Amino acid sequence: MQSLKDKILLEGTIVGTDILKVDSFLNHQIDPQLMDAIGRDFAETFSDAAITKVLTIESSGIAPALSTAFHLGVPLVFAKKTVSKNLDTDTFAATVHSFTKGKDYVVRVSKKYLRPEDTVLIIDDFLAKGCALDGLVDIVEASGASVAGAGIVIEKGFQEGGSRIRKKGIRVHSLAIIQEMSEIDHRIVFSDEE
Amino acid sequence: MQSLKDKILLEGTIVGTDILKVDSFLNHQIDPQLMDAIGRDFAETFSDAAITKVLTIESSGIAPALSTAFHLGVPLVFAKKTVSKNLDTDTFAATVHSFTKGKDYVVRVSKKYLRPEDTVLIIDDFLAKGCALDGLVDIVEASGASVAGAGIVIEKGFQEGGSRIRKKGIRVHSLAIIQEMSEIDHRIVFSDEE
Repeated sequence: MQSLKDKILLEGTIVGTDILKVDSFLNHQIDPQLMDAIGRDFAETFSDAAITKVLTIESSGIAPALSTAFHLGVPLVFAKKTVSKNLDTDTFAATVHSFTKGKDYVVRVSKKYLRPEDTVLIIDDFLAKGCALDGLVDIVEASGASVAGAGIVIEKGFQEGGSRIRKKGIRVHSLAIIQEMSEIDHRIVFSDEE
Repeated sequence: MQSLKDKILLEGTIVGTDILKVDSFLNHQIDPQLMDAIGRDFAETFSDAAITKVLTIESSGIAPALSTAFHLGVPLVFAKKTVSKNLDTDTFAATVHSFTKGKDYVVRVSKKYLRPEDTVLIIDDFLAKGCALDGLVDIVEASGASVAGAGIVIEKGFQEGGSRIRKKGIRVHSLAIIQEMSEIDHRIVFSDEE
C-alpha cells in the first residue's frame, strides 16, 4: 500500500536494530483517513472469505481493525490485556510475550463474542516475532471458530513471525513488509511481496 | 442519540448499583456502524469549535474517538496507560483512578502531539465520577492547548462527574445520560438533556 509506505518513509523513526516508531500516525497519534484506507484495503482483500468477525488486541490494533470491520459490515472484538469489572469471567485466554514492553501478559476474549460458526479476520498493527498473532489464533481455535487470515499493517519481514505463521497455513496479508532497516543511515527497504 | 439509547436498553446489563455492561457494542465487542454514527454526531456538535485534535484514553475510548476524528478530518491522539519502548520519554502525564479496575494509573501523552496552538476535543466512552476526564483535561492544560469540550458516549448522570466538570466551564456533550438504573427490575431511565 503505497500511501502507507510513503508515510513510513516520511515519519517513521528507527531505534536500534528492531524498533520502528510510527507513533505519529499509527500507535499514539493516529491518522484516521489513513486508517480508513487501510480498512478498505483489508476488507477488499478478504471480501471472498465470508468474514463474520474482526478480532484484534488492545490498544494499537483497534484503529485499523475498527475501520476494517466498518468496511466489512461486521462486529469488531478486541482482546483485553487487563481484567476489569466490565469483563466476563468466562473467557478464552492466551499468554503473549511483548518484546516492546519486555513482559508476558494474558489476553482474554469473552466466550460470548466468539462462536464456532464465526469466520474471523485477525487485524494487528505490527507483525514481528508473531507472539500476539499466535495468541489471537489460539483464542479463535479454542472457540471453535475458523481463522480466515490476518491483516497486518506493518510486517517486519526480517523477523521470523510472518514466515512461521504463513507456514502454518494462515493467510497473512501485510500492507507494508520491511525487508531491512538501519538506524545509522535511516534506511528502510520494503519487500515487493504484500 | 436514539439509536444508542435503544442499543443500551436492548443489550446493556446492569450489575449492582453502578456498573452498566455494554461490552456487546462499545467496549469489548464493538459495533462499527454505531461508532460511525457516534463520530458523526460529535463532529457535527463541535463543528463550530475549530478542533485541531481529538484526544482520548486507551482502550475503550479509541473506537468512538477514531470515528469522530475521521469525520472532523483531524488526527486522534490516545493517552497511554503503559510505558513501552515505542513511547517518548518526554510526556505530559496525569494520575487517574479507575473504579472499574480498582487502581490508580498514570496516563501519558507525548509532548510532540499536543501543542499550545491546538484546540482539543476530548472523547471517552463513559463519564461517571470524571477521573479519566479530569486527567485528560489536566494533560491538555499542561500542554498549553485549549479544551473545546468533551464528547461522552454514556454519562452516568447519577454520579457527580458530569455536573462537576460542567461547573468548571467545560462543554460536555453526552449522547446518552442515564438518570437512574436498577439491577433488580432491569430498569434504565435516561435524562432528557444531552
